[in-house]
Amino acid sequence: MVLRAIGVVRNEIKQPSMRDYEDVLSDIIVDTNLTEALDNLDEFSHIIVLYWMHQVASTAQPPTKVHPRGKQELPSVGLFATRSPNRPNPIGKATVRLLERQGNILKVKGLDATDGTPVIDIKPYIPGYDSATGAKVPWWVSKR
Amino acid sequence: MVLRAIGVVRNEIKQPSMRDYEDVLSDIIVDTNLTEALDNLDEFSHIIVLYWMHQVASTAQPPTKVHPRGKQELPSVGLFATRSPNRPNPIGKATVRLLERQGNILKVKGLDATDGTPVIDIKPYIPGYDSATGAKVPWWVSKR
Repeated sequence: MVLRAIGVVRNEIKQPSMRDYEDVLSDIIVDTNLTEALDNLDEFSHIIVLYWMHQVASTAQPPTKVHPRGKQELPSVGLFATRSPNRPNPIGKATVRLLERQGNILKVKGLDATDGTPVIDIKPYIPGYDSATGAKVPWWVSKR
Repeated sequence: MVLRAIGVVRNEIKQPSMRDYEDVLSDIIVDTNLTEALDNLDEFSHIIVLYWMHQVASTAQPPTKVHPRGKQELPSVGLFATRSPNRPNPIGKATVRLLERQGNILKVKGLDATDGTPVIDIKPYIPGYDSATGAKVPWWVSKR
């Protein structure tokens, strides 16, 4: 299973950090041979971006237990119960606001990826399909 | 960018179709060396599953325009404005109800993947981060 980048993230975030990304503005520069595949996307207010977390140290064996958000004061939990980037397949998934499409460029708000991140898929956000009603999370999750 | 399967889907769906998957029950069999990484996941009611849509014909060049859900009566739109499985990187993303965890097995409801589908990531569903308030979709999208 081999991925190819369909585009790249451009923004002012040069290093990964636990900062709040809610107001971060990014451009997603999509390969020009895929420009037409972006048609109609701006009829959606939000999109889902899948990206390759290229700045994560590629360890042969990621830890199976981690402290959520790196906070040592929180209990160590299973890796898949967290959004830690250091996972077997370092794919990030973000739901972001689509502000504007200009040709092969998508202007988005709230993408928690760094400058230069390869983008591997873009999907429309569909309420009801992508959202869950009455979802329950444990106490150690902070709403971001 | 190379992916490795972390598990596999087992259910009664042998062929991809446009059917309603809302009530489909599936087991996700996770590699036993990752069992511990599933700890605490069942403190969440819903999870996000990323999977490799292995039954999609791998075409060198997917179409850039498609009819939503294959319906010829709907206008042809940009590929990335749809959830068509025939995309540059055939990665599916589903938000599903987590019914139970038994060791390395996750019992889930609503996964729109066929039997034998390789799973590439599992993430907890976090309202607010994974959901969007007041999201807008065009008229040709059917809520599933």
